[in-house]
Amino acid sequence: MVAGGLDGEDPMKVHRRMATALDDALAAIDAAQAAARSGAGDARPAWPLIILRTPKGWTGPKVVDGEPVENTWRAHQVPLDSVRENPEHLRQLEQWLASYDPVALFGESGEPAASLAALKPHGDARMSATPFANGGRIRTDLRLSDFRAHAVDTAGSRTVTASATHGFGEWLADVIRDNPDTFRLFGPDETVSNKLDAVFEVTDRVWAARLLDTDLNLARSGRVTEVLSEHLLQGLLEGYLLTGRHGILNTYEAFVHIVDSMFNQHAKWLEATRDIEWRRPISSFVYLLSSHVWRQDHNGFSHQDPGFLDVVVNKQAHLVRISLAPDANTLLAVMDKALRDVDTVQVVIAGKQDQPAWLSMDEAEAHVQRGAGAWDWAGTPGSPDRDDPLPDVVLACAGDVPTLETVAAADIIRHELPEVNVRVVNVVDLMKLQDQREHPHGFTDDQFDELFTTDRPVVFDFHGYPSLVHQLTYRRHNHDNIHVRGFQEKGTTTTPFDMAMLNDIDRFKLVLDVLEYVPGLSARHPDAKASLQERRDAAREYAYTRGEDHPDITGWEFGQG
Amino acid sequence: MVAGGLDGEDPMKVHRRMATALDDALAAIDAAQAAARSGAGDARPAWPLIILRTPKGWTGPKVVDGEPVENTWRAHQVPLDSVRENPEHLRQLEQWLASYDPVALFGESGEPAASLAALKPHGDARMSATPFANGGRIRTDLRLSDFRAHAVDTAGSRTVTASATHGFGEWLADVIRDNPDTFRLFGPDETVSNKLDAVFEVTDRVWAARLLDTDLNLARSGRVTEVLSEHLLQGLLEGYLLTGRHGILNTYEAFVHIVDSMFNQHAKWLEATRDIEWRRPISSFVYLLSSHVWRQDHNGFSHQDPGFLDVVVNKQAHLVRISLAPDANTLLAVMDKALRDVDTVQVVIAGKQDQPAWLSMDEAEAHVQRGAGAWDWAGTPGSPDRDDPLPDVVLACAGDVPTLETVAAADIIRHELPEVNVRVVNVVDLMKLQDQREHPHGFTDDQFDELFTTDRPVVFDFHGYPSLVHQLTYRRHNHDNIHVRGFQEKGTTTTPFDMAMLNDIDRFKLVLDVLEYVPGLSARHPDAKASLQERRDAAREYAYTRGEDHPDITGWEFGQG
Repeated sequence: MVAGGLDGEDPMKVHRRMATALDDALAAIDAAQAAARSGAGDARPAWPLIILRTPKGWTGPKVVDGEPVENTWRAHQVPLDSVRENPEHLRQLEQWLASYDPVALFGESGEPAASLAALKPHGDARMSATPFANGGRIRTDLRLSDFRAHAVDTAGSRTVTASATHGFGEWLADVIRDNPDTFRLFGPDETVSNKLDAVFEVTDRVWAARLLDTDLNLARSGRVTEVLSEHLLQGLLEGYLLTGRHGILNTYEAFVHIVDSMFNQHAKWLEATRDIEWRRPISSFVYLLSSHVWRQDHNGFSHQDPGFLDVVVNKQAHLVRISLAPDANTLLAVMDKALRDVDTVQVVIAGKQDQPAWLSMDEAEAHVQRGAGAWDWAGTPGSPDRDDPLPDVVLACAGDVPTLETVAAADIIRHELPEVNVRVVNVVDLMKLQDQREHPHGFTDDQFDELFTTDRPVVFDFHGYPSLVHQLTYRRHNHDNIHVRGFQEKGTTTTPFDMAMLNDIDRFKLVLDVLEYVPGLSARHPDAKASLQERRDAAREYAYTRGEDHPDITGWEFGQG
Repeated sequence: MVAGGLDGEDPMKVHRRMATALDDALAAIDAAQAAARSGAGDARPAWPLIILRTPKGWTGPKVVDGEPVENTWRAHQVPLDSVRENPEHLRQLEQWLASYDPVALFGESGEPAASLAALKPHGDARMSATPFANGGRIRTDLRLSDFRAHAVDTAGSRTVTASATHGFGEWLADVIRDNPDTFRLFGPDETVSNKLDAVFEVTDRVWAARLLDTDLNLARSGRVTEVLSEHLLQGLLEGYLLTGRHGILNTYEAFVHIVDSMFNQHAKWLEATRDIEWRRPISSFVYLLSSHVWRQDHNGFSHQDPGFLDVVVNKQAHLVRISLAPDANTLLAVMDKALRDVDTVQVVIAGKQDQPAWLSMDEAEAHVQRGAGAWDWAGTPGSPDRDDPLPDVVLACAGDVPTLETVAAADIIRHELPEVNVRVVNVVDLMKLQDQREHPHGFTDDQFDELFTTDRPVVFDFHGYPSLVHQLTYRRHNHDNIHVRGFQEKGTTTTPFDMAMLNDIDRFKLVLDVLEYVPGLSARHPDAKASLQERRDAAREYAYTRGEDHPDITGWEFGQG
């Protein structure tokens, strides 16, 4: 029926050997599954592997125009490239196609012969109809316990500290416990160092190799998959989501660039399939980037890169969500939204170090609901004898470290430049900055203007590259007054506060900016600039001589000034 | 001398076996090199491989606080973590360090013993001093023949067509011929399809596996390295540059994202080492992206992504150069600069399809020297009776397809809206757009204003995502009047002109923009909008019914209108 063969072997013999190999492989898989399901032992099954070696271009024309084709690189080209003009090419094409004996297979009418029709799978067994390729059909919503049970009690103080990922990890343990067959956590070997270790109270790392007595939290089955390859992790989670399940990939911010191209393709898949009527929604792909650019003190410059956000923002707006959690309670509320979402990519950035828990749980929920808003408690209280209803300056921030610096800067202003009316705006949902015409989450111009004013200076302290904020806001009325601080590729192995200073996102620099941008202010406070510069220099001096930040920085609390 | 051993084996026995293995391996390498250099046969040598298996934490404390350490995961932590407070920890640390017998090795004074000193390498054999780790020390400039010999003769017509990469490939063959030991071309299996096949007149693809009679341009040695893994290619070229040689990596624009993270680290390495006094400059890393977003007609949406530029621009400005060659002669002049450069990353984007060769070789050289400039021949000739010295509108472009559309749009305007004074500006060196204070290539504000005006509408047709042009120009005086067209993630398998229309970068859309932005123009030409829209719809209709672009589009020549 077909011509050719492996090194001249009769192809029918190869076909029969292939059929036997397939039968053997299916039997081996059945046996391995039966053994595993019976719970007998924990030996790793050796999965069958079929190696099929055939000549490249097998069954096609062996020689065209006197040149060998079969089993050469020419079989990868279009060897019969002139069928319209060249009768010999046309003859060879006809001969090749006729070698499949189409009349016997399909009859004169084109209907498949009965012997073929009997082989057809039916219903969901058809490749085009299997629910495993349309995962939304078998997807069920996650059972999510109340995240508020893991809230940090701030006691209204703004000074309680907590690790954002630690609190989230406790709730995540609930998620894994309550969804034992439909949720997995993926990551390089950083589950513990990212402070998600509470999950090990309810599950283990899945491990297929040898188990030792000294191993901790390794087991034959477990809902945590750790492997130091972001490529593998991304592929595993994509497959898990596409087949109707749920998961999170947690990794280093700088190294998530490794999967830029895979993220692109997943986003393109979501875009290309969103208008296909029969496709059901799948769970959103959730990235948790918790070892981020500002806290790579020990790893240094090679680990400092917040540019994944720029790659993400380039994809179509309705596909991507970016959340920068400023504290522990906010991260809980962000994650509750992200895990309920479908058909998007969710990028969540949150710190793992202890930081002030600025917001109570109720405040955090409301803040996440709005996506961005003024933190009145951090700004200047409204003065009844002030005529101007607008602030003199807006200090905006996105990201946990920039938020800390911004709140501290506002605190300095309230104590040392008390006549300045400052508004502190925190942005959780970054796409709020974009115009509503471009992103479904975007603020309308009115909403944006209400928060950022149309004519007051805005100093925006940003987690990533400053240009991203400009990119998102360049159409806003007040854009010319928005001055963005962010990562400027100034990095090294140094203290956290020195990293902030190297990139000009620190509290002192922000106050210096306010001095520069609020008209007349520096003239009224002729010594302020030198004083701020002096404290900045002293902080650097301390960091460089002691190898750690000054207690005035590490011990600072809201309200101290 | 040291404690521990492999599964309890005496460590001295392991040491002796390791020494023997090293001697054997070096002898095997010597023999393989001698055989290769004698030219005897072309058998592939089997390189020796030593597998050393030792317990994790070997020679360290075996048990700490009653918990096993050696050969467990605890050896990867800090097992003796309380030496200041815990006398037992301190004792164990002392015992461990003393096990190396430092007194015998270094004496009481700390001087290495004579037996150790005799082992020390000297001069360039020291690891810290080897020139192979400071490649600039052994780097020599490339011998570059005159690229002008491969110029397209445009005969002053603007209508001669040529493939940019084909012409460059001819010059590249000279480069390879003239630098047989210091230049390599790296890429996936696309040297031919990127139209660089002229190189195979002087060299072959290097190939270590079996050679067949039917193979073309495969050989045991050759200056072209093809492997379908951008990761491998990036790593190979980095190593080649770092050891003092030269090269180019050519690949698909969409898939160069695969090495985003490796690009980042190479750029960081360049940044981190540029102030080290003893390090000599190395050749710049040159990317040639020639299968780009706008010409993926057959591959479709998955192959359409121009976002590598956004990743590149985030690195420190002095490290990166981006060149978008609008035609064949420009690419030659761009590449001549790129191959002479040191200590940067050069990203060059150029098409491989036949396109108009707009510029003569002299014009192209002058244009590349400026980096961006007005193409007077494409705009409106100055009218002696016009009072206004400035154009009514600036049509700017960067990239070969946007340039074609822009020149065609200006042509339509000159024929159909003759009273509009239009200036065509082409940008080769993208960083010209950025402020000179941010990028060493950047235009001063005066230079920028001279080209783009301070108050006239600018319609900028861009190769990549529109936001990148905004990011680079947001500080410019005329920024509010710059309207950017570019890739909007609208892609599919369609004709080239339909791709342009899907993303609104086509000639008709540009003229529609001019109608919108030039005050009073659309009122004076009430039918123009409908006419342009009609032609656009007709072009789409033709593409969708015929599967190819309308002859009016494919056959358009400059001057036709």
